[in-house]
Amino acid sequence: MKNAKLQAFIPLFYIVWSDDLLTKKEFFTLQYYIDSQDWLSVEDKIGLLSRITISNPPSRQDLTDWKNTIEQSIQDNPEVKSIFELAVVLSKNDTTVQNLEVSFAKLENDLGILGEEAISNFKTKAKSFTVNQQAEASFDVRKITDLLDGEQAHIINKVKSIISRPEFKLDAAMDIGVYRQKVFDWCTILAKENLGNMAYPKQYGGGGNIADYFAIMETLSYHDLSLVIKFGVQFGLWGMSIQSLGTEKHYAKYLRDIGTLKLPGCFAMTETHHGSNVKGLETTATYHHETQSFTIHTPHPKAQKEYIGNAALHGQMATVFAKLIIEEHDYGVNAFIVPLRDEKGVVLKGITIGDCGPKMGLNGVDNGTIRFDNVLIPKENMLDRFACVNEKGGFQSPIPSDNRRFFTMLGTLVGGRIGIPRSALAAAKTGLTIAIKYSDQRKQFGPEGASEVPILNYRMHQRRLLIPLAKTYAVHFALQYLTKRFLNKSEEQMQEIEALAAGLKSYSTWSTTEILQECREACGGKGYLSENRIDALKNDTEVYTTFEGDNTVLMQLVAKNRLSEFRKSFGEMGSLGIINYVYENAKSAIAEKNPLIIRNTDEAHLLDYEFHLQAFQHREQTILASAAKRIKKLIDTGLEPYDAFNVVQHQLIAVAEAYLDRVVLEQFQIAIAAVEDEKSSAVLTKMCQLFALSQIEKNKGWYLEDDYMESVKTKAIRKMVNQLCWDIRPDAVALVNAFAIPDSCLGALV
Amino acid sequence: MKNAKLQAFIPLFYIVWSDDLLTKKEFFTLQYYIDSQDWLSVEDKIGLLSRITISNPPSRQDLTDWKNTIEQSIQDNPEVKSIFELAVVLSKNDTTVQNLEVSFAKLENDLGILGEEAISNFKTKAKSFTVNQQAEASFDVRKITDLLDGEQAHIINKVKSIISRPEFKLDAAMDIGVYRQKVFDWCTILAKENLGNMAYPKQYGGGGNIADYFAIMETLSYHDLSLVIKFGVQFGLWGMSIQSLGTEKHYAKYLRDIGTLKLPGCFAMTETHHGSNVKGLETTATYHHETQSFTIHTPHPKAQKEYIGNAALHGQMATVFAKLIIEEHDYGVNAFIVPLRDEKGVVLKGITIGDCGPKMGLNGVDNGTIRFDNVLIPKENMLDRFACVNEKGGFQSPIPSDNRRFFTMLGTLVGGRIGIPRSALAAAKTGLTIAIKYSDQRKQFGPEGASEVPILNYRMHQRRLLIPLAKTYAVHFALQYLTKRFLNKSEEQMQEIEALAAGLKSYSTWSTTEILQECREACGGKGYLSENRIDALKNDTEVYTTFEGDNTVLMQLVAKNRLSEFRKSFGEMGSLGIINYVYENAKSAIAEKNPLIIRNTDEAHLLDYEFHLQAFQHREQTILASAAKRIKKLIDTGLEPYDAFNVVQHQLIAVAEAYLDRVVLEQFQIAIAAVEDEKSSAVLTKMCQLFALSQIEKNKGWYLEDDYMESVKTKAIRKMVNQLCWDIRPDAVALVNAFAIPDSCLGALV
Repeated sequence: MKNAKLQAFIPLFYIVWSDDLLTKKEFFTLQYYIDSQDWLSVEDKIGLLSRITISNPPSRQDLTDWKNTIEQSIQDNPEVKSIFELAVVLSKNDTTVQNLEVSFAKLENDLGILGEEAISNFKTKAKSFTVNQQAEASFDVRKITDLLDGEQAHIINKVKSIISRPEFKLDAAMDIGVYRQKVFDWCTILAKENLGNMAYPKQYGGGGNIADYFAIMETLSYHDLSLVIKFGVQFGLWGMSIQSLGTEKHYAKYLRDIGTLKLPGCFAMTETHHGSNVKGLETTATYHHETQSFTIHTPHPKAQKEYIGNAALHGQMATVFAKLIIEEHDYGVNAFIVPLRDEKGVVLKGITIGDCGPKMGLNGVDNGTIRFDNVLIPKENMLDRFACVNEKGGFQSPIPSDNRRFFTMLGTLVGGRIGIPRSALAAAKTGLTIAIKYSDQRKQFGPEGASEVPILNYRMHQRRLLIPLAKTYAVHFALQYLTKRFLNKSEEQMQEIEALAAGLKSYSTWSTTEILQECREACGGKGYLSENRIDALKNDTEVYTTFEGDNTVLMQLVAKNRLSEFRKSFGEMGSLGIINYVYENAKSAIAEKNPLIIRNTDEAHLLDYEFHLQAFQHREQTILASAAKRIKKLIDTGLEPYDAFNVVQHQLIAVAEAYLDRVVLEQFQIAIAAVEDEKSSAVLTKMCQLFALSQIEKNKGWYLEDDYMESVKTKAIRKMVNQLCWDIRPDAVALVNAFAIPDSCLGALV
Repeated sequence: MKNAKLQAFIPLFYIVWSDDLLTKKEFFTLQYYIDSQDWLSVEDKIGLLSRITISNPPSRQDLTDWKNTIEQSIQDNPEVKSIFELAVVLSKNDTTVQNLEVSFAKLENDLGILGEEAISNFKTKAKSFTVNQQAEASFDVRKITDLLDGEQAHIINKVKSIISRPEFKLDAAMDIGVYRQKVFDWCTILAKENLGNMAYPKQYGGGGNIADYFAIMETLSYHDLSLVIKFGVQFGLWGMSIQSLGTEKHYAKYLRDIGTLKLPGCFAMTETHHGSNVKGLETTATYHHETQSFTIHTPHPKAQKEYIGNAALHGQMATVFAKLIIEEHDYGVNAFIVPLRDEKGVVLKGITIGDCGPKMGLNGVDNGTIRFDNVLIPKENMLDRFACVNEKGGFQSPIPSDNRRFFTMLGTLVGGRIGIPRSALAAAKTGLTIAIKYSDQRKQFGPEGASEVPILNYRMHQRRLLIPLAKTYAVHFALQYLTKRFLNKSEEQMQEIEALAAGLKSYSTWSTTEILQECREACGGKGYLSENRIDALKNDTEVYTTFEGDNTVLMQLVAKNRLSEFRKSFGEMGSLGIINYVYENAKSAIAEKNPLIIRNTDEAHLLDYEFHLQAFQHREQTILASAAKRIKKLIDTGLEPYDAFNVVQHQLIAVAEAYLDRVVLEQFQIAIAAVEDEKSSAVLTKMCQLFALSQIEKNKGWYLEDDYMESVKTKAIRKMVNQLCWDIRPDAVALVNAFAIPDSCLGALV
């Protein structure tokens, strides 16, 4: 194409041959265009058309030449912005070509080429701002670590140093038998370090420090979750069941040996046919006054104890939950200490142990089934804090209602619903540390001609990892709050604390399941290899949403507690009246705010913590009032309450979610208000804003339905979430470094 | 309480002692009330107060007596509806008590008791409608099975009968080495049954039937997913790479041996440093004209091939993707056949194999790494369909652009993006079959005094399993459509089909990940035991969202294809102008519909398939136009296109999702329209309605933001989703039975 004006076609020719999205049809479009240009001679046309014949493509060298020609022209004429302008330059400002602007633009469109984009692609991309994002902490990592660890820093550091020892080395390829023994051995080491008995009273050799016990559970969870669960079964479930449900004689007899792991034991509650519905347990404990003993019995195979940790291999005794029968009268579920094995590990007569076999995770824990064939135990083995058989052989309890006694007993076991969500939290922290550090290093794709870019610079990747990171920080402070409430509990507050624990257990464990899913996908194939740990974290915590209470069932308990509190707080008026009142009142309160708030998209407003909290509170109150109203209405129309609650079950979950969201946000904000260091406070504030706004974004359907926000605002919030992710990205690595998880727990990737 | 009027207090006394939600404060409230009643004598008050002293609770017998008294009264007076009315009856219609209505109601509220609920709880609950739901098919299961299997019924039944044989027995506890060998042996059996070579041309011993090949992949996926992937690596990736990228000489030399598994091989594309960005591969194939050969070389450790199936143990050869270098010039990525092991399995000189070790799942597949140390291969080993080295030692290709050639090559491999989503679909079907059948049998909780209820009768459980079931049916028909499009492809349609395959691969695999998560949780502890299969299904399919293209990356490809199509279809006008036009036009089209539709909550309208499809189309078009407009604007303001695409990355995913949702719904509707059997059509229509409405519910935030619906309508849709779940529940077991999955694949639960 020596004829200068013909050079005008080079960019289009180059693009049709190199753009992998163009089809035959586009070639014909271009051919038709050339054919219809009357300023071209027949020879010109033939020459041009010969370069775009599908059966006779240009050589690779032609293409390279064209590309060089174009790039050189653009370099010489940096003002060029469109394919037409480039064509003019290439034609050496030929006047005929200068007149083609309209038809060239049409042609570009016919071909589906975005001209500006194409031109940009010929320029060097060194200036791309996506390329330049990188890790750069705006704060002192150590200070955030101190803040997170708080008063438990000492014990946390002790545990970290123990699990970093060579004998705690993780091995993803262990055989199940070897793994179970290894976990038992690890527990023995921890017991020797006086970690197992940390929560027991000092007079029984314990540390008398429950706060430290929870910190131990959480910190161990960085390491191996089978270890945590085995540890929790032995020292938490088994030991604490003695402490919570037994009396002095039991403490004196058992606690010391449990704390040193001399006496491994089980917590045998769940049966094959009864998990969530514990009240329906069918194992029986029948009292015999003449021999001052009980017979523990499994009436049919589906009433066997199932999933019992420590049962398949190591447990020598178990706290067994069974219906107490005295003179053929059923006194409801009570707890009994039942020996399973002798000191050499031989299973005792009348006891049949099964092995649950391979599980999705936690394969270092020896879960098993237990069947009792008329096993005799002495009367003193009844854990008799809340009920006993008196000297006359009669049932006696300070709590007359079977139901109430049962829930009081369960209430004392609420500690498990603190240990598990804290363990889940630690797993999320570990997963995020691995995924964020990997994503900061892993590069893939980049601007044309420039080097590849860390995948954490991509917006979707930021959303997938940084929103979960913000939530993880939020959950951390919420669980600190829950722990404090539990440690300072009074009887009056117990129901609220139990509901809070049930709720945060669900909240934290579901959050962890979701987060580890994102972490796995964010690490691609590397996330699938066991050596990189996400495998184990994900599979081990998978059952956290089920054990210590199925999350969906727990969320309904939380909702029922909220409904009950709601009814109580409006005792002054008729129930339906008050519900209407609150509901309408909430509505009108909002209506007043309308002009000011529902369309407000000012940055300062969107980032304002008061706006966040009000939005969360409004959602919580409105959903609660609405659910209460709906249940009332359904029952009024003749539905059984059981059916009414089933009809609104979906809404009950929403009641609990909204309540928990509010508690979590509130506690995050309170925690930040107490931070003195400015830089720590600044970065945590950003995290809290991201948590709040991403939750609002997630629930934008609800807010729009409720007219609490207009679409202009929900759209502005979406953008703000993206912006916050972008702003936090340079701090992301430092924010996971602040978890200060031992390197030995982070797998091969980091 | 012999004094009849005092009996009025029995219900409240009973409730405060038995209700586990009441606290000390409530007792004081009740005490205060009694104290303030001037119609009671001092003795009466002392007597009453003594029954509600916390330090001196009634005996269990007292409580039982009270309960019996109450229940007897209600039985005798079934018209009683409130605690006050009950009190009147118990007081033998004492006139003083009759005057207490207002203060009693207030007291109830102060105590937080919902009177009607309490009364209901004393009645028998046999009439609860929740209790009565049970499995009862409204259609002929066989007819739906025939519909799903279609023309592939024959091969599907053959595969089912093979995987049901004793030698295919599943074993969750296999050691990794044993498992890998077992999977290889299974593949050998399948090859002998002429299933492996099904897609190869008949002249090379194949079946020449690609439709059957995909059906085989899908049906095998009911069994063991390691088997499917091993099978897919050997016969699909390895064999098809020869067929798609090679020429006659390669077919003649290799296909027969690959089809019989005499020649196990690998597909070696991914490298440690380059997965999604395949163009960036660093392995080199340097041509030597003098010896007519190539040297295959791994330039640095991170350029090693990684995750390669069949590499760690069995592969004797591999299709290796490497940059072709001729005289120091880089001609882009091409494919070469490279021997790895001799026939005895001994690794050849210059080849270093690593083992990826234990993975989250698919542990029956021997994934490995491959490093090449200047490995010499003959010139004929280049797969030369799209490029070759000519006799003069020069590069030659019918496709001059390296980029275009590269994408054409990849395009021929699109079959993998059909096999994987279909395998994922089968895994979802298996998971749902297990979870739904279990939930139909598993009972937990129930109305007071009645028997327990199948958990599938609970509304949340229905939402968790039946919405996924509807989606699974929808995806089934969408993948049938994709397969047909692929089998009847023309060059003109290839880009669209590639985008569709990339999109549905993401759609189906993400859907499976989500669904199996629900299935696991829905089965509780049972879902965690390996013997029940959800473990394996979940972990094996986990990497489906990553391999054959990371889903997030693929969704961006889909979005870019949609944007490109969008630009092309409006070639007549300037690009920004047209975008504005379409966007505003769409808006106004809707505005016209407003009064009719956005508030319409008629059942007939909500269930109307035209409404569903229009809503999906509107979302698709509006998001697409909006994304196009936004990108244009960002580039106009000076952003590099690379950065602009990063800014809108989140929106691009939404573009792809909306497109795929529409395709999936459309194909489901088209499939139903062709169903002749009325009962089949009726139940599938319900499933399609549930799919459509649950997707709209999921995206209600978007619809509200867009003013396409008002909140009254989105709320009505939520209720309709619940109602559809309830209506489908009796058919649920039959709907999973229609998948006709062999019992041997369903684990121990079913």
